[in-house]
Amino acid sequence: MDADESPKSALVTANAILARQGVLDAFGHVSVRHPDDPSRFYLARSLAPERVTGSDILEFDLASQPVVPSAVPLYSERVIHGAIYQSRPDVNAICHHHAAAVLPFCLTGLTLHVVTQLGATIGKHVPLWDQRDEFGATNHLVTKPEEAASLARCLGPHAIVLMKRHGATVVASSLRELAFRSIYSCRDAELQLRGLQHGPLDTFTDEEIALAGKFPEATLARAWDYWRARLRS
Amino acid sequence: MDADESPKSALVTANAILARQGVLDAFGHVSVRHPDDPSRFYLARSLAPERVTGSDILEFDLASQPVVPSAVPLYSERVIHGAIYQSRPDVNAICHHHAAAVLPFCLTGLTLHVVTQLGATIGKHVPLWDQRDEFGATNHLVTKPEEAASLARCLGPHAIVLMKRHGATVVASSLRELAFRSIYSCRDAELQLRGLQHGPLDTFTDEEIALAGKFPEATLARAWDYWRARLRS
Amino acid sequence: MDADESPKSALVTANAILARQGVLDAFGHVSVRHPDDPSRFYLARSLAPERVTGSDILEFDLASQPVVPSAVPLYSERVIHGAIYQSRPDVNAICHHHAAAVLPFCLTGLTLHVVTQLGATIGKHVPLWDQRDEFGATNHLVTKPEEAASLARCLGPHAIVLMKRHGATVVASSLRELAFRSIYSCRDAELQLRGLQHGPLDTFTDEEIALAGKFPEATLARAWDYWRARLRS
Amino acid sequence: MDADESPKSALVTANAILARQGVLDAFGHVSVRHPDDPSRFYLARSLAPERVTGSDILEFDLASQPVVPSAVPLYSERVIHGAIYQSRPDVNAICHHHAAAVLPFCLTGLTLHVVTQLGATIGKHVPLWDQRDEFGATNHLVTKPEEAASLARCLGPHAIVLMKRHGATVVASSLRELAFRSIYSCRDAELQLRGLQHGPLDTFTDEEIALAGKFPEATLARAWDYWRARLRS
Repeated sequence: MDADESPKSALVTANAILARQGVLDAFGHVSVRHPDDPSRFYLARSLAPERVTGSDILEFDLASQPVVPSAVPLYSERVIHGAIYQSRPDVNAICHHHAAAVLPFCLTGLTLHVVTQLGATIGKHVPLWDQRDEFGATNHLVTKPEEAASLARCLGPHAIVLMKRHGATVVASSLRELAFRSIYSCRDAELQLRGLQHGPLDTFTDEEIALAGKFPEATLARAWDYWRARLRS
Repeated sequence: MDADESPKSALVTANAILARQGVLDAFGHVSVRHPDDPSRFYLARSLAPERVTGSDILEFDLASQPVVPSAVPLYSERVIHGAIYQSRPDVNAICHHHAAAVLPFCLTGLTLHVVTQLGATIGKHVPLWDQRDEFGATNHLVTKPEEAASLARCLGPHAIVLMKRHGATVVASSLRELAFRSIYSCRDAELQLRGLQHGPLDTFTDEEIALAGKFPEATLARAWDYWRARLRS
Repeated sequence: MDADESPKSALVTANAILARQGVLDAFGHVSVRHPDDPSRFYLARSLAPERVTGSDILEFDLASQPVVPSAVPLYSERVIHGAIYQSRPDVNAICHHHAAAVLPFCLTGLTLHVVTQLGATIGKHVPLWDQRDEFGATNHLVTKPEEAASLARCLGPHAIVLMKRHGATVVASSLRELAFRSIYSCRDAELQLRGLQHGPLDTFTDEEIALAGKFPEATLARAWDYWRARLRS
Repeated sequence: MDADESPKSALVTANAILARQGVLDAFGHVSVRHPDDPSRFYLARSLAPERVTGSDILEFDLASQPVVPSAVPLYSERVIHGAIYQSRPDVNAICHHHAAAVLPFCLTGLTLHVVTQLGATIGKHVPLWDQRDEFGATNHLVTKPEEAASLARCLGPHAIVLMKRHGATVVASSLRELAFRSIYSCRDAELQLRGLQHGPLDTFTDEEIALAGKFPEATLARAWDYWRARLRS
């Protein structure tokens, strides 16, 4: 984060970038943990991500309740954020999305692999959560604390969890890493969908993922600055 | 509808949104029932939806004739609207389109299913109408009252009717719901087309569709406000 | 053509529309027959269609030579235009393009059919010309009068001729019809490519093509006006 | 190159064109050999290509070290450029990219062929380099001189080398030819991916590639001028 960039301001930028790059549309949401108080996080009121401004951002506790009671409508799936911040102290930013790039993996038995250097941000394993397994027939929204806790358990120590018939939840140590991971996991997913139409794919080995998957801050910043510049064009 | 938004103004916005989101192009049309007189509806004169302004909108009776005789060219398929408003008192808004997302379903034996929470707006069953069945060889335009009545019968109590080698007609209780249903049925259709290239799809059960398919007004408004904001970018 | 629209001005618009709608890119070209002298036609100097302005348009004779000798570079494949204007007195506008929508048909044995009402502009039969058949190994540019004459013979009385490993040439009685036919043949081609991935397609019969394929001037104008309005957005 | 266009200015334009045309995104890079000193080349500091301006461009020697020591971050894969300029005196411009159009070829056993006249810029043979063959498990970045030398050997006398699980490196005698080759090889790759879903492809023979593959300067300039004009829209 730039020294002069507040967490709220960076969160507004992350919302706009992820919308502009096709990860989010009218739905989906992004949060960031409070830099000084790990028991708090920032998340917008219920609003399409591209329309979020600084004044739309509220502070939540880890039960996903607003710290200052508010009458504005809130994201019905905000419990996803609190549950993961509780179980993953290393996570400082979360994106829940329904990008067209990952949905085919959520609708079929396809496994999401790493197929390029940038895609190594996906990590060695992407678990798949099915709300049906524990909760039977639902509307497929993750709105109850026990549903979110189940999703967080399935995510475990990984970077991304796919959600059957639903979408994905991506976690990272910073908003810059979150944008990078959300976008390049979608790009790698697209490449796999296209490649698979022409034969089995040659994927990265676990050793190669370990070597490639740690991206220096300069790499994350180069991508972030590019996507931010594109917001004005 | 916003308290300060007239039906004509909302209809102009719906035309623009559905064009910008890829449901309509030079062709296709959208109507809304008169809020005070259920035997009337509003529809533009023959014009590409994106170009429709308030002064292009005319009032029609349920025989799809303009209430005030007019010399301007009218949509040749406007009978679709009158026939459905006659048979479906619960319907207040209709869109007829030829979006690329649904055409593959209209050209093959593929069935349109619900595969995501937002896609539950499609409903449990999507009937398929074939103009050939009752009318033999035609130019595939629905221009006669008996053709429109046949289409309305096939639609029955459902939300969407697919039309063989032609497109789709979508109905809803409001323009906001219509935009939501038209757009997210196209999105779900796209996901199915992509997913099916990689294996059989895991779809929603009827019970899940019943649970997910009733979207609160706040959800419809969040999407509508997002699409409306995108008209200016 | 609007009463107040000169042929050169309409040709500039057609160039811009066909570029903006994805039929043309840096290459491809569009011509219109001189309204008062059937032995002349208008075509731009060698320039990407989107960049063509009125002052770039030259007058050619049916040997595809400029009427006023000029030192500016000319399209190397301009002989296509002269040859077809010679053999087809009913043709007043021609577009040669390499749109991605039709190329898969030019690279495989796929036949281009009519699958929608708007696609009926394609007509009952689309011949396929292979430069190899008469001319053996070439660079696949149609630059010699005998190559263009061969292409015109293959086109015969039809509306579109596909060119193996190359693209398509589309003819029409006016620039408005040409734009409509070029764009909606590409749209129908796209629908077929998508649909064929999911099963055999249900196509129009010859009788239906005959009924649907004659589009009134108002239909052509509605599409043209829409595409022209989109040039400004 | 225009008489009034400096190499740095042309390199800025090439970066912008290749980003706008979808060959480059946040990553990838383009260089040009110094016109007066074949032992030097120009390349930007580490920056997304679309954001490169004249002041971001540095001069490098053929060991890929900056001629004037600099503290700014440099592309980690800049050794690709120096190694190829060393081994290929005929090459004056290089682009390394990860375009979605070529990745499916890098992930499967698919061979990139020439299927259109413009695609003949690809040449008769496209070698495929696999970093694993000589270097075992790596992060798939080409950062060591010996890795770049291996890639240059695999490229040999050809115009493009595909890189397994990575992307492509394209070479040319000028920036205009480089833009043309990078973009039209991607277009031909896309056409092959689409066509192959519908049957075996009819490709150019070696004799036809030889006849078609030499593009006059006017052709390269027409495309370059078009893409440059599109940067402003």
